[in-house]
Amino acid sequence: MQGTIRRDPVSHRWIIFTPEKAQVIIRDSAEAEPLLPETPGSCPFCPGSEHATEKEIMRYNSFPHLNKGWSLRVFPARNPLLRIEEDPKPGGHGMYDTMQRLGAHEVVVETPRHGGSFDEMASEEIRDILRAWRDRSADLQGDRRFKYIMIFKNRGKEAGGTVNHHYSELVAFPFLPSFVEARFHHAAEYFSFRRRCVFCDILAQELEEKSRIVEENEEFVAFCPYAGRFPFEVWIVPKRHMLYFSETPHELLPSLSRIYRSVMSRIRIALGAPAYNLMVYNGPSNYDDFTKNPLQFFHWHIEIAPRIFGMSAIALGGGGYLNPTLPEEAAAFLRKAG
Amino acid sequence: MQGTIRRDPVSHRWIIFTPEKAQVIIRDSAEAEPLLPETPGSCPFCPGSEHATEKEIMRYNSFPHLNKGWSLRVFPARNPLLRIEEDPKPGGHGMYDTMQRLGAHEVVVETPRHGGSFDEMASEEIRDILRAWRDRSADLQGDRRFKYIMIFKNRGKEAGGTVNHHYSELVAFPFLPSFVEARFHHAAEYFSFRRRCVFCDILAQELEEKSRIVEENEEFVAFCPYAGRFPFEVWIVPKRHMLYFSETPHELLPSLSRIYRSVMSRIRIALGAPAYNLMVYNGPSNYDDFTKNPLQFFHWHIEIAPRIFGMSAIALGGGGYLNPTLPEEAAAFLRKAG
Repeated sequence: MQGTIRRDPVSHRWIIFTPEKAQVIIRDSAEAEPLLPETPGSCPFCPGSEHATEKEIMRYNSFPHLNKGWSLRVFPARNPLLRIEEDPKPGGHGMYDTMQRLGAHEVVVETPRHGGSFDEMASEEIRDILRAWRDRSADLQGDRRFKYIMIFKNRGKEAGGTVNHHYSELVAFPFLPSFVEARFHHAAEYFSFRRRCVFCDILAQELEEKSRIVEENEEFVAFCPYAGRFPFEVWIVPKRHMLYFSETPHELLPSLSRIYRSVMSRIRIALGAPAYNLMVYNGPSNYDDFTKNPLQFFHWHIEIAPRIFGMSAIALGGGGYLNPTLPEEAAAFLRKAG
Repeated sequence: MQGTIRRDPVSHRWIIFTPEKAQVIIRDSAEAEPLLPETPGSCPFCPGSEHATEKEIMRYNSFPHLNKGWSLRVFPARNPLLRIEEDPKPGGHGMYDTMQRLGAHEVVVETPRHGGSFDEMASEEIRDILRAWRDRSADLQGDRRFKYIMIFKNRGKEAGGTVNHHYSELVAFPFLPSFVEARFHHAAEYFSFRRRCVFCDILAQELEEKSRIVEENEEFVAFCPYAGRFPFEVWIVPKRHMLYFSETPHELLPSLSRIYRSVMSRIRIALGAPAYNLMVYNGPSNYDDFTKNPLQFFHWHIEIAPRIFGMSAIALGGGGYLNPTLPEEAAAFLRKAG
């Protein structure tokens, strides 16, 4: 595998260089890179195309009366960001830092059915998706070379989705990605000072104020965050303090699948089936930099960002400091769409 | 002015809420927000439409034999992100932090001519644009309420540009935006440890290695950074150590305008006139958080990010950790396009 990982010495951001993805003709490249071009009947994630994917890591067959052979499949990405190979070989290049493209990148095909909206799935099917995320992330966390396990879903072209078939992805990074580094740093700082988890405190205030709550059940709260980056951004946070998604006990999966399905249904009804990005924010997979407060300072949660404005509005936001929609208004709108 | 500024307690990112920009019908909002819709002959930045802008702050008339009345104009943005009003009124809301939308947002119309490519301008015209950036940012820095002066240009729809007329913008923030906070933090850390500016060290290594250099003149270096976030990203860095763009002495403006024009010409020839974002990274406008190393740890520079891949590839990058193009290859390609 070509490419490398390099760290910018000013921002400390690690960048993965993926030269194999640059095989687009430069003058023709205003189009999005078609990682998995989809022509009718040729979806690589549909039953019958199992040979078109990499070797299967795992499959479920939870509803054998409904499906032939599987209800969910997991396999390595065909064009992985990172690949399990050997040592990350951290090294220097003068003043610069570099390492090999070690890691893992897996695809979860969430259903055998092509297309459709997420909330057409039964809660039992969604529970299985969550179970797959939990089991795969637990397995990847066992590898001490990995520093962060990302679980995410890009749905729709504007959000970076490639196929109109519900799928999600897991990536195991050999470094802490920049988008979690600031969160860990400040959450750990908060914990050091107050001896309380910042997310537990957020939940307490949100449940008291109510104006940003979208929905609540016995174990989870869905709300529009006080300073969300995207219009109609929704977080789903467990009431119970847990560092890793992989710690979620089996008995919580039904209530999580119900609130997740319901939130996606509200977003579809209120916003007209927008493209969206979903990210499970996990704790760091080792404690090298956070030894003072193991297991305490972070709290796994899901962030859902509908892409309802064109990308240029986000570009205008120059890294995301601009949001036209107050969370109180977004939450009211989503509550009504129940 | 409605809206507010709020800080996310986990990432510490400040978000500006701009409800007046949400006047798009939600179901119709896959389209980019048309801040300044342009119909033929109705460009608000062309001569004859001076009445359509806010009250002028400044104008140049450097080439009176060529233009009628002005060669460059500066005025407040009609839909500003932030506005000079009063005290930022920092306050708390339970555990959350908030402040008013204090600040400034100005537009620089860079030429009276509509459309065309940047490098059609003469170096003397470009020198005037740089002079306007310098003079306006110096003026805004004088206001002690502002913490950071951003100078930027969004060219083309994919980059958030709104009008096909060359213009740039200045925004004065009452907080440190998240995209500079990590840079300041790590650059200050580097300085504390080594007693040298990280940018001065980068320049030394780049000039020795040569493989990422696009162009060099007596006072400036243009290169593709070792761990750039975007394909064909180019930085233009002054060889002389300066914290603020506003410190650039008059005698350096001609060499800066030559290298800036030449880099934009290379990008146009090599990549086919892509949309792009340009940002001048400035030092912080006060030293509250960086009192140990005033004037030393940061070094102003320009970052240019062509938008040659569709946004979904960038979305896939989930906050920018993925780049398909090695900087050495990008630099070689741009050097040839001279």
